[in-house]
Amino acid sequence: MKNNIKVVIWGFGAMGSGMAKMLLKKKGVDIVGVCDRHPERVGKSMFEVLGAERGDRADVIIGSEIEEILTKGSCDVCLCATDSYTKVAFPRLKYVLEQGVNVVSTAEEMAYPKAQSPEEAEELNRIAKENGVTILGTGINPGLMMDLLAVTLSGAMVDIESVMCKRVNSLSPFGEAVMEEQGVGISVDEFEKGLEADSLAGHVGFAESVGMIAEAIGWNIGKFEQQMKPIITNVDRKSPYGFAAAGTLAGVNMTGQGYVNGEVKIDMIHPQQIEPELEGVSTGDYIELKGTPDISMAITPEVEGGLGTIAMCVNMIPHVINARAGLKTMIDLPVPRAIMGDMREMLED
Amino acid sequence: MKNNIKVVIWGFGAMGSGMAKMLLKKKGVDIVGVCDRHPERVGKSMFEVLGAERGDRADVIIGSEIEEILTKGSCDVCLCATDSYTKVAFPRLKYVLEQGVNVVSTAEEMAYPKAQSPEEAEELNRIAKENGVTILGTGINPGLMMDLLAVTLSGAMVDIESVMCKRVNSLSPFGEAVMEEQGVGISVDEFEKGLEADSLAGHVGFAESVGMIAEAIGWNIGKFEQQMKPIITNVDRKSPYGFAAAGTLAGVNMTGQGYVNGEVKIDMIHPQQIEPELEGVSTGDYIELKGTPDISMAITPEVEGGLGTIAMCVNMIPHVINARAGLKTMIDLPVPRAIMGDMREMLED
Repeated sequence: MKNNIKVVIWGFGAMGSGMAKMLLKKKGVDIVGVCDRHPERVGKSMFEVLGAERGDRADVIIGSEIEEILTKGSCDVCLCATDSYTKVAFPRLKYVLEQGVNVVSTAEEMAYPKAQSPEEAEELNRIAKENGVTILGTGINPGLMMDLLAVTLSGAMVDIESVMCKRVNSLSPFGEAVMEEQGVGISVDEFEKGLEADSLAGHVGFAESVGMIAEAIGWNIGKFEQQMKPIITNVDRKSPYGFAAAGTLAGVNMTGQGYVNGEVKIDMIHPQQIEPELEGVSTGDYIELKGTPDISMAITPEVEGGLGTIAMCVNMIPHVINARAGLKTMIDLPVPRAIMGDMREMLED
Repeated sequence: MKNNIKVVIWGFGAMGSGMAKMLLKKKGVDIVGVCDRHPERVGKSMFEVLGAERGDRADVIIGSEIEEILTKGSCDVCLCATDSYTKVAFPRLKYVLEQGVNVVSTAEEMAYPKAQSPEEAEELNRIAKENGVTILGTGINPGLMMDLLAVTLSGAMVDIESVMCKRVNSLSPFGEAVMEEQGVGISVDEFEKGLEADSLAGHVGFAESVGMIAEAIGWNIGKFEQQMKPIITNVDRKSPYGFAAAGTLAGVNMTGQGYVNGEVKIDMIHPQQIEPELEGVSTGDYIELKGTPDISMAITPEVEGGLGTIAMCVNMIPHVINARAGLKTMIDLPVPRAIMGDMREMLED
């Protein structure tokens, strides 16, 4: 039998620690290192931080210096849950690849890095190939709900004229950082100022999802645009980490369009807010494909973003190990899947 | 630029001729041969049979002898639309592979041939590898709606307890052969006799879909069962090729279950009938995944089976050419996708 797959987790916030919890329940895989800089976590046992039973597993002490945790041959895969942007993540990803270690990145832009950082994408592809390993960015969105799933459904179509993806989600489960990025609770004035100062992140990923869909289908995107609009609540809304008084922002409505020959071919709609139910908004994921035949899909309620991203990253580990070397996106690899058996059985010889 | 992809179509019924029509609208691909034994088609131009403009394309005369149409190096891929069952298709598939030609088969059992013909599956895998080519079985179902799509969605799950796939479809667009296979218009007595004589095919594919899902997720199926029940109409129903008087069969309800440790983990429900709307039945594809998180998907109306199968087979051509040699299933390859660009651009170097 093969050795267990060895995983290092870099970044132990909500995503990284969630992946650790998930991995502890899986067979054929071990967490061999955790790198994180948060002063409350450094030096502690991963099991203590997770509140998980260690059992007969070796302890894993969270360290702050990646060079001490991840070295040549020390693991098979690194789950990088440190960043949203390719350019910021780049030096970290480079370091891991140069140790001959495969990478799964949660960075939204890494789902299709060609879209916004083509030079870094090319460089990561080159470094990965030089070191005989694979790098993939994934998550629930970008990564599945507003891109890969639409692509998969289009496989049943003889031709396709347009793609519409809509994800209506709730921000209620998320923490303070997300409340701030999405403008929860701010006034319309503050929103306008934030927009001008470019200090509201909104959803990161439309350029990536549009790029992925277009490449898959064979469309050349001539123009890409996106917009952010305030979702103003008529009632007070309260979530564990957020509060929006009536008249302030419950969140933002992100929209984006990919044009082919002056026509919108890919239409993205993604309103994000806390407690949408308080004003009768139900969450869900929707895909409308126009062509031969039309396909109309609805997933209600939405697939929860936090759990979904954790699952996608962990579930892609075997595919990333199996893949040919280089930079991959979700359209290059076999479909993700829940893993209930021994992860080693998914590895090709 | 690479040469156009060369395709031979074997079997020119509804599926094979539909694929030809689709291919004529695609870029970077040529149909170089058609093999079919139907006396009305043999010796005729493919374009004439399709009622399609030939333009400046080379003519393709339909022949009845595969040895004259498909020889070593004469094409890149053969679309085999001749059979439903692996054992029947086997000698044909073997012949094509031995010419060093990749295969996409519409045979339902070929979507996961290990399920019912493990020896033939192993043999096809061996022959394909020996000849450096790939063989894949696909279609709308099995191939996407009741297997690959459920697997893909499960990728967003931390763990999974059970899978339910339900496809409520209309048989109205189908021809006489399907009316007969599905018992449309027969009495309950005739149905009972047909069941005993094993002369009603019903849906072919549950064993394959269950096998594919189980392998993807890592479940060991201990027991598989399926049932066929009559759908008795209360009103007269008429479709282009079928008629069911009130009190007779409008079709059949197929159900199937895959058990893991004595428990149903994969539940398949697939009622097929003509004119379901006449008794208030709406068509649709439904997937319910229980686990963390639950996922509930609906596609309404159903994705049409004929077009869907045609599209899946054609759209998988580039993936089959790119794949490592051997027998593949849909869970081994990148996701299907509609192809609107030049098919050659999807080929890896």
